[in-house]
Amino acid sequence: MKEVDVRRKVLAANEEAAARLRRRFGADGTLVVNLISSPGSGKTSLLEASAPRLRRRLRVGVLVGDVATERDAERLRRLEVPARQILTGGACHLDARLVARHLAGDEFAKLDLLFIENVGNLICPTSYDLGEDCKVALLSVTEGDDKPFKYPGIFARASVTLLTKMDLLPHVDFDLAAVRDQVACLNPDAHVLETSAKSGAGLDRWCALLRERLPVPV
Amino acid sequence: MKEVDVRRKVLAANEEAAARLRRRFGADGTLVVNLISSPGSGKTSLLEASAPRLRRRLRVGVLVGDVATERDAERLRRLEVPARQILTGGACHLDARLVARHLAGDEFAKLDLLFIENVGNLICPTSYDLGEDCKVALLSVTEGDDKPFKYPGIFARASVTLLTKMDLLPHVDFDLAAVRDQVACLNPDAHVLETSAKSGAGLDRWCALLRERLPVPV
Repeated sequence: MKEVDVRRKVLAANEEAAARLRRRFGADGTLVVNLISSPGSGKTSLLEASAPRLRRRLRVGVLVGDVATERDAERLRRLEVPARQILTGGACHLDARLVARHLAGDEFAKLDLLFIENVGNLICPTSYDLGEDCKVALLSVTEGDDKPFKYPGIFARASVTLLTKMDLLPHVDFDLAAVRDQVACLNPDAHVLETSAKSGAGLDRWCALLRERLPVPV
Repeated sequence: MKEVDVRRKVLAANEEAAARLRRRFGADGTLVVNLISSPGSGKTSLLEASAPRLRRRLRVGVLVGDVATERDAERLRRLEVPARQILTGGACHLDARLVARHLAGDEFAKLDLLFIENVGNLICPTSYDLGEDCKVALLSVTEGDDKPFKYPGIFARASVTLLTKMDLLPHVDFDLAAVRDQVACLNPDAHVLETSAKSGAGLDRWCALLRERLPVPV
């Protein structure tokens, strides 16, 4: 079997597992958000800053994918949010079967909102459906304003793009308008929000956007 | 054939192609440096800042891998350095055959120094030998000080780790000593240099390190 056929088979198996997950999340009334970005764009910091705002009224859980270490899940458990680390053992993305395997137990049953923090990688995670309601891309202003067109797959598929680390904007060359134009070109329906986990900027809008999407209004 | 077998076959084919490249580079007396980092860590900016220092006495060329756009190669050609963009068409890493296919022509013959700027990705490029003399990892201080242990593969294999964007250090939480400890733990022989393409800090040391490694002293 050729490499391309194997890849097609792997993705087809993933689609099946993702469809099963989607049925489960639908039955549970859980909104599922797949967070995708480069390493160090601030996925965990965003969740640390968002969770206290969200968990007042919602049951929130987090699955965190990484190649190695339990650090991100440890950071999130400190916030009293159920968080599980998925170690991929070298794989550069999460897949639906890995996610399904880490959802057992009461802690992750019937959540209102499940965040899946993907492995830090702008490319491969884009191709693997995890049964989520939406993909959210993060792009920190320190990464440069050329990224949407350089990594079009994720910015075309993400229904929300969060520009993170806005507190650092005065110190870097980053053309906000250019980035908004690129994202609009790749996905005219995408929301683009300017956020900072450090200052809290944009987080109310982000949390409101999540609440609007909940299958069961809270 | 199983997924794991296909991967083994792909890597074995890559090893063969990399061995052919290595013989060619050896015969040409070319030092080859494979630059690997997250998207937006500053690989192209590093080359823009280094090239004018290096090309005074050396014949330097650059191959740049990206999923999409010719932007990086265009930036480098402005410096009068031969630069070719390798578009991977979705693939998240360069492989030795892609590199070989882009080396044709006089411009890339008998260089003293060839930089291969890999696709922005801390994971997959690590596994693909490109016939290089050394891998260089870049980690910008805005990405966070937990990265070496979270992405151990590249920091274990890189003989040089460049901490980039040091000009932003006053504005971020980044524990330099912790990062140095992690890198030392993964690769006790690695050099760790603190650099800034913006201020020029550390670039003399970086260029000196490259010159020391040239197969033919210049």
